[in-house]
Amino acid sequence: MFDKMRAVKAFVFDVDGVMTDSRVHVWENGDQTRTMNTRDGFALKRAILKGYRVAVITGGKSKGVTSRLNGLGVLDVYSGIADKLIALEDFRKRYDVSYDQIMYMGDDLIDASVMKRVGLPAAPRDAVPAILNISSFVSSLDGGDGCVREIIEKIMILQGTWDWEVGNEQPGI
Amino acid sequence: MFDKMRAVKAFVFDVDGVMTDSRVHVWENGDQTRTMNTRDGFALKRAILKGYRVAVITGGKSKGVTSRLNGLGVLDVYSGIADKLIALEDFRKRYDVSYDQIMYMGDDLIDASVMKRVGLPAAPRDAVPAILNISSFVSSLDGGDGCVREIIEKIMILQGTWDWEVGNEQPGI
Amino acid sequence: MFDKMRAVKAFVFDVDGVMTDSRVHVWENGDQTRTMNTRDGFALKRAILKGYRVAVITGGKSKGVTSRLNGLGVLDVYSGIADKLIALEDFRKRYDVSYDQIMYMGDDLIDASVMKRVGLPAAPRDAVPAILNISSFVSSLDGGDGCVREIIEKIMILQGTWDWEVGNEQPGI
Amino acid sequence: MFDKMRAVKAFVFDVDGVMTDSRVHVWENGDQTRTMNTRDGFALKRAILKGYRVAVITGGKSKGVTSRLNGLGVLDVYSGIADKLIALEDFRKRYDVSYDQIMYMGDDLIDASVMKRVGLPAAPRDAVPAILNISSFVSSLDGGDGCVREIIEKIMILQGTWDWEVGNEQPGI
Repeated sequence: MFDKMRAVKAFVFDVDGVMTDSRVHVWENGDQTRTMNTRDGFALKRAILKGYRVAVITGGKSKGVTSRLNGLGVLDVYSGIADKLIALEDFRKRYDVSYDQIMYMGDDLIDASVMKRVGLPAAPRDAVPAILNISSFVSSLDGGDGCVREIIEKIMILQGTWDWEVGNEQPGI
Repeated sequence: MFDKMRAVKAFVFDVDGVMTDSRVHVWENGDQTRTMNTRDGFALKRAILKGYRVAVITGGKSKGVTSRLNGLGVLDVYSGIADKLIALEDFRKRYDVSYDQIMYMGDDLIDASVMKRVGLPAAPRDAVPAILNISSFVSSLDGGDGCVREIIEKIMILQGTWDWEVGNEQPGI
Repeated sequence: MFDKMRAVKAFVFDVDGVMTDSRVHVWENGDQTRTMNTRDGFALKRAILKGYRVAVITGGKSKGVTSRLNGLGVLDVYSGIADKLIALEDFRKRYDVSYDQIMYMGDDLIDASVMKRVGLPAAPRDAVPAILNISSFVSSLDGGDGCVREIIEKIMILQGTWDWEVGNEQPGI
Repeated sequence: MFDKMRAVKAFVFDVDGVMTDSRVHVWENGDQTRTMNTRDGFALKRAILKGYRVAVITGGKSKGVTSRLNGLGVLDVYSGIADKLIALEDFRKRYDVSYDQIMYMGDDLIDASVMKRVGLPAAPRDAVPAILNISSFVSSLDGGDGCVREIIEKIMILQGTWDWEVGNEQPGI
């Protein structure tokens, strides 16, 4: 697994159940909103700052999620996607990254097709069993609880790019 | 229980405590909103795609819940219901399903009358004790945590209709 | 404790940490909203239907909480209260109930003065230690998780007024 | 540690992951809101009443958080801060408190620089490992779950200023 981790140049994530805890808040006017994690946001910003490619591919459509991700610097947000392989292929070609260089984290069956193609398929601890079975890395954290931060930090530390040990703080990331 | 599961042609659910975690968010303008689960939504869509009848019978009234359920394809939403047996009878006759063909999942005393009539009464893990006692199937998950997904997936796998094993993905359900 | 429970004719509750999990959602416009429990609501309605006096005494001010409680039939909502003993005294005299006939459930130091006066002081499982120490009854549930339902159901079953066993359902409470 | 606690004259807190559980609710219009804890609010008010200096230093920007904190009497809210040491220095000089007199509670790497300077660095139970390692005090509670209340109460009891034992209630704090 360390070899797979060392090869990663791009981080790709599902939203529901990965960046959230699978919950959706339903509003009287028909809006549906999500709850995300600030620690995940910290890591996404840091990965982009250090030159990694970061994308999100989701079956859902949420202006709020897209807005927050854009604010963190994640500009490649594929939403309302039925076939995730097509979106991944678009992302892969745009930035010239190979499948082996992609870490993808998903939690449910709709993520299986892309997870079987990428070099490092990963999942939050509470992913559905079939997804846990095909994951090279299973987070110690549930979806929405910091699993995005965990995988990014682990890979960047391994590659020597995290660059933020206590004693070596850098203000204002 | 497997015989009961094999007979199911219709899925009927309570909302509060089954599709939600019994919480209701109260707003300054008097609105009350709920939080639902995206994995439950995935399974509801799949069941409808495969021809199962799906209904919801709730004592509450929430435009947001109805709106989300309609968006998932669940069109039979009985809300503001005091006597759930009357609603179930209406649903049963409209689609010509027998009691033995119905799975009903509820969590509280108001669900008892219908649960004693249907072929497969089910409950989330955190239902009240009296309801757990009359349930043929008790989910390994709490209300709002994916218990709807679990019962649908289990029954559809048993009946050979789930049709989504890894290795047999179908994009765009 | 059973003697104390048998004497209860009135239920009085704190809001934050009892009817909620101590969380308050803060909004950009300055609004603060809470999350309540539908099972608690079920029990409050049933207690009122059976003739118990029910009141809420809270240091906070939330139109949303008051609106939901009113909708459940709880009309005596004392909010923005600094000295809870004064509010309790007003309630006690209005309905001619003695201290021994009152169950009060609170979770924090501000509840201590009233809890030391009433016949049955009670607390959710996650109340602060000083409050747990002076409680005759400690719920098996946390604030916001159904502790209001639990104490009401226990007392009403003991007094023979709960009246809703499975096999004896009454639609439309 | 008791010596460090006895020296404290000022309480300074991070927001995300300390006063909240690291979650941020994302809205269709781009708003991002947080969920705070009423027990923390109780302690913040009490500390201010007793003459302690209280400040908040956060990398985020939330009008809702600032509004609630102001309502509790916390007027020194440094938000949108990239380098927390600069904000701490401003606060320190304004009120003439030394580093040894400051308790600072943080949960993530961005808090490390200030935590290494203050007399009493503290963290919620679920802070990231590097932060737990440099904390003199680790709360028994997670962020958003009352860790702010716990540290304030502990220090004020030790200093004889908490002044609210059961038997010595004071209405209307």
